[in-house]
This record gives sequence, structure tokens and C-alpha cells, in this order.
Amino acid sequence: MQGKFITIDGNEGAGKSTQIDFIYQYLKNKGISAVLTREPGGTELGEKIRELLLSNSTGKMHSDTELMLVFAARNEHVQNKIMPLLEQGEWILSDRFSDASYAYQGGGRGLDIARISQLESWVLQDFTPDMTLLLDVPVDIGMKRVESRGKKDRIEWENLGFFNRVRDAYIARSQQYPDRIKLIDASQSIQNTSNQIQEILKIL
Amino acid sequence: MQGKFITIDGNEGAGKSTQIDFIYQYLKNKGISAVLTREPGGTELGEKIRELLLSNSTGKMHSDTELMLVFAARNEHVQNKIMPLLEQGEWILSDRFSDASYAYQGGGRGLDIARISQLESWVLQDFTPDMTLLLDVPVDIGMKRVESRGKKDRIEWENLGFFNRVRDAYIARSQQYPDRIKLIDASQSIQNTSNQIQEILKIL
Repeated sequence: MQGKFITIDGNEGAGKSTQIDFIYQYLKNKGISAVLTREPGGTELGEKIRELLLSNSTGKMHSDTELMLVFAARNEHVQNKIMPLLEQGEWILSDRFSDASYAYQGGGRGLDIARISQLESWVLQDFTPDMTLLLDVPVDIGMKRVESRGKKDRIEWENLGFFNRVRDAYIARSQQYPDRIKLIDASQSIQNTSNQIQEILKIL
Repeated sequence: MQGKFITIDGNEGAGKSTQIDFIYQYLKNKGISAVLTREPGGTELGEKIRELLLSNSTGKMHSDTELMLVFAARNEHVQNKIMPLLEQGEWILSDRFSDASYAYQGGGRGLDIARISQLESWVLQDFTPDMTLLLDVPVDIGMKRVESRGKKDRIEWENLGFFNRVRDAYIARSQQYPDRIKLIDASQSIQNTSNQIQEILKIL
């Protein structure tokens, strides 16, 4: 039996890592041992591309270049890890996937959504997650959480306008694909957010 | 006045580097100080992508990923270096450009030419070199020259079938775009090849 591909996405400081741990444990209690992975990254080459994308020493790059590097890493991830694992019946939890490209490069950088969609189709054809849990937090709350973590990466140095556009683009995605993308209010406590996620996971 | 963008391409061991030096000197004698650049690479980020593409420690990657990395580096090269320099009136000599993607990823790896063309259009729209000098050498002669250089990169370890397909794809490109791509027989002496190039450069 084919496994399921679940992605967890969201704006900065929404608490993805914590909730991925929760989902992993929830599935484990149901007898499902999911594979944890992340984007950009997830493969040896993908992690090297991640380093180029996030390192502060990389400096500025053209927005199209950024999008192409994200999708190059994504192609490697899907072709050499996600698809083969799904065919073996594994469940996969990925920290970020394509929706992040619409949010960060589309919303944040202002790239044309139709152009992003063209590149996505070129790379993924119609491959898409079975479910996406979208953790949403107001930008001021999220950024306070990011600041408290200390060191920022190349993307986290962006300005508030950037992060507001990212959040708006994520919300727009969830409205466009309500069946796949489940919008979760991550502004309250960790427990409160986990409870919302647990209700949604029951339908799987 | 807008500068000119000249690319030098060709299969392994065709003698690109030597002939680029010749072209550079030829132009210099005409009072034109060209900018030398190369692909993959040409920018700081592009050179890091080149390292991923050519390093033997990178290992196997999916062919689409390879193509996307090449075009990511190319986008950075065109947007942040080639186009701005052309607008300043500079002449540019690039060691490889898009034709190499058709030859190596199309011919060599067997990627669908129409798909490569889609990605090229997404990235470059209709941006194209003013002239391409395509140095052609039979694979057995070219590979002997490569062997004599010593250390091979990740691509140079491919088999003879791969390099024969690369050569055939280059020749097919020159037949498809005869006005832009000038096919040069690089199987004879350096001097003989330079003489052919000099005849062609006279029309610029």
C-alpha cells in the first residue's frame, strides 16, 4: 500500500519543529513510523543547496535563481527520496514543501505566481502532498519567537513587509486549496496548536 | 552601444580554452577588451553551483536536478553579469552557454529536448548569444586530449556513448541554428582551428 505524504508549512516562528515532533509521536502511537525530512534539503545534495540558500555568506541572489535552487533541491528530494519511500508504503512528514515557494518567493520576493506554477509543473507534474498542515501565526508573535532562538539565517534577516507578504501568501494558498491545506492557528500555546492538529489528523 | 555576447562551446577536448585565448587576443588587437567568463559559473554563487555539479564527491544526481542547477547558475550569470555588462557596451566571451545544456543533459543524459527548451524559455525568455563558436572534435581524439590533462571531473568520468551523444547533439544544434552557431573543425592543429575562427570573426 502506498504511504502518505504530509507536509508541515508555515511562516517564521509558527512552531513547525515542535508540532512535527507531536505529529511523529501521534502517528507512532497509531503504529505508523513516519520518515522525517525537510526542505530545502532532505538529500545529501539538497542539504548542500540548502546551505547555499540559507548561509549569510552567500549574499544576495536573483529571485529566479533562489526559486530554481529551491526547486532543484525539491526535485532531488521527490525523485530520490519521497517517491521511492511512498512506493514502499512509508509515511513521510516534511518540514516545508512547494507551498513555501509560493509564500517566500511569490509573496516575499514578489515573483509572479503563474511563473512559479509553471516551474512547479515542469518539475513535479501533478505530484502534491496528501495533506498540508499550515501553521499560521501573526508576524509580530512569530518574529519574537525567532529572535529568542538567536542566530538568524539569510532569509530571516528580511524585513517585516517581507514576512507579512509571506504570511498573506500562505493564507491565500490555504483558501485556494482548502481540501489539502489545513490552516491552523498557531498563535496560542503549543498544547492548543497540537490539539487542533490532532483533530485534523483523525481524518487520515 | 550594446556590446556583443559570444559563446564558445564544444565537446570534451575540443580545445576551447586555447581558442578563447586566441579570440581574446584577436579582439584586443582590434581595440576590443572582452570580458572572459564561463559556465557553469561566472558569478560567486555560480562558481559554488559549479563545484556541486563537477565535484566527484557530489555523486549521482537526478538529470532534471543537474539541468536545474545549470540553469540556476546561468540565470545568476545572465541577470547579474552578462546583461549589465552588455548594456555598458562590453563584449563578453563565455566558455559554454545554453547549447551545452542541450548537448550534455539532452544528448548525454537523454533529457527530452522540448522540456529543456521549456526551462530555457522560463529562465532566459529570448535572450541568446550574438554568435556561438562550436568547436567539434571526434570523441576519440577529444578524449585522448582530456586524458592527457590528468584529473577528471564528475562529468568527464562518463562513458564513450555519453560523449558520442553529446557531440551529435552539438552538431544537431549547429544545423538547427546555422546563423548563430558556427561549426568549427577542431580535429587538426591549434593553428588550423584558430585560422578557421579568424575567418568567422571577420563578419562581426
